[in-house]
Amino acid sequence: MSVVVVGSVAYDDIETPRGRAKGLLGGSATHFCVAGSFFSRMELVAAVGEDFAPQDREFLAGRGIGLEGLQVLPGKTFRWGGRYHENMNVRDSLYTDLNVFADFRPVLSTRARRAEIVFLANIIPDLQIEVLDQLEPGRRLVACDTMSHWIEGHREAVERMVGRTDMLVINEEEAKLLAGEQGIVKAARRIQAMGPTRVLIKRGEYGIIYFSPDSVFAVPAYPLEEATDPTGAGDAFAGACMGYLAQTGDLSDAGMRRAMVYGTVVASFIVEDFGLNRLRALTRQDVEGRYREFVALTSFGRG
Amino acid sequence: MSVVVVGSVAYDDIETPRGRAKGLLGGSATHFCVAGSFFSRMELVAAVGEDFAPQDREFLAGRGIGLEGLQVLPGKTFRWGGRYHENMNVRDSLYTDLNVFADFRPVLSTRARRAEIVFLANIIPDLQIEVLDQLEPGRRLVACDTMSHWIEGHREAVERMVGRTDMLVINEEEAKLLAGEQGIVKAARRIQAMGPTRVLIKRGEYGIIYFSPDSVFAVPAYPLEEATDPTGAGDAFAGACMGYLAQTGDLSDAGMRRAMVYGTVVASFIVEDFGLNRLRALTRQDVEGRYREFVALTSFGRG
Repeated sequence: MSVVVVGSVAYDDIETPRGRAKGLLGGSATHFCVAGSFFSRMELVAAVGEDFAPQDREFLAGRGIGLEGLQVLPGKTFRWGGRYHENMNVRDSLYTDLNVFADFRPVLSTRARRAEIVFLANIIPDLQIEVLDQLEPGRRLVACDTMSHWIEGHREAVERMVGRTDMLVINEEEAKLLAGEQGIVKAARRIQAMGPTRVLIKRGEYGIIYFSPDSVFAVPAYPLEEATDPTGAGDAFAGACMGYLAQTGDLSDAGMRRAMVYGTVVASFIVEDFGLNRLRALTRQDVEGRYREFVALTSFGRG
Repeated sequence: MSVVVVGSVAYDDIETPRGRAKGLLGGSATHFCVAGSFFSRMELVAAVGEDFAPQDREFLAGRGIGLEGLQVLPGKTFRWGGRYHENMNVRDSLYTDLNVFADFRPVLSTRARRAEIVFLANIIPDLQIEVLDQLEPGRRLVACDTMSHWIEGHREAVERMVGRTDMLVINEEEAKLLAGEQGIVKAARRIQAMGPTRVLIKRGEYGIIYFSPDSVFAVPAYPLEEATDPTGAGDAFAGACMGYLAQTGDLSDAGMRRAMVYGTVVASFIVEDFGLNRLRALTRQDVEGRYREFVALTSFGRG
């Protein structure tokens, strides 16, 4: 199976209590693809500017990521600057220069239209709907993300988009905002009533909670001795999760649970260094090792 | 094995978004004892006033809770009023009338001095130290709780007290405050360096994370359709955990993990109604049923 993701590719300037780094390869679709590429072929649909570095393109291609849908538009690549507080759950956006991303209109190749798994990363909901319109029928799993900015300013479009997908992957506060519910179970039930039968809620360092029609699943995050840069952890989580689903082809409840743990594991690595740096040297063996550590972390008498 | 707890018995007046209730039997030691009494004999060391209702005494005695150490002092029982916000992680104390609790000096009976498991619930650290001074040597597990108020105002006494125990059971924000560390792993390591080899951090609706010399354990909380009143959930968690440890006598890492899941399960029930009401009709069978549901909630491929 293959996975297509539509979202952003960016250069990030990041400051955290551990240090700072400039011009990091980032963006929601990038983090998603690179994390997923440990497991499956990923198709990237996004836009970059003429300044997009050849070595970044080579890095992505070298991971087997399909770049047919990566448009090069006149101008500069999307650039984001952010600063994290001592409590790294809190960050300030220093600037958001959309650049070529302002003119981006996603175009899916024939291959991308037929990908078994589709992920609409967090972009303006009207563009997510344009992607949905291009998909061939019969996709196995269509999932999406969104954020407070769109929920607050474009609620109607967000609900229409979410309603056409199988799964929403979203941060906890955003789930509560979308649902208009403070309780997490009720919020998930209300989102399920909007259309997606699966709701996967990301709780940062507290892990995830997932609602399917049949059951609820919850696991903590992998606790890190030191977090360096949380940027992209949520997208890497989703990417590894979908990549693993595509590798196994098992979209059952059990398969989905394993996929979410792989997502948790890969997300824990990305936080250990700036941008995508930690994933560059990471091996599938490292991932399997931490999966086993995660099993040990969460094991108790189940008799 | 038996468990002794030193802490508060109170009458609570509580408002939550689900409703309000007055004169509820409450207090840290009460929640702890009642939750633990599903598993083991609990010894309660606390003080009440002359207004303490006979039916409340009978309720506690009826659960096999030892009341030898429950002093009746001239005056009124400790009374606390609190109001929870729509987000029930946030609450305001409306009043704290210490009443007889202001004059409380814990006195342990011979039986209590020899209890295998001792829990110092959240009270002024000087009193916790007085309890430590009364214990006979050779207790299997001495655990304690504390809160921001004491850490901020009596840090030296808190550190001295914590340093004489085997385990600290504490809320996440308080752990970070005590350790002077924002990262949870580093905070736990720093607390371990103060003395207690075991650090059990309570994260409310996100569950718990536990650091022993050998390993780290983390599980989410049990997600509730509707939370009615979170008061006492942390104390009930600790009480059920210690009660289960006393029942099995297995203080190994594996035994401790199972105990923490039982704590998680009992704490999830207490939140479903005001005060201790939900525990009054609860059976051990109900607890076992939700333990199995918790296994299902957190299971994934561990092969």
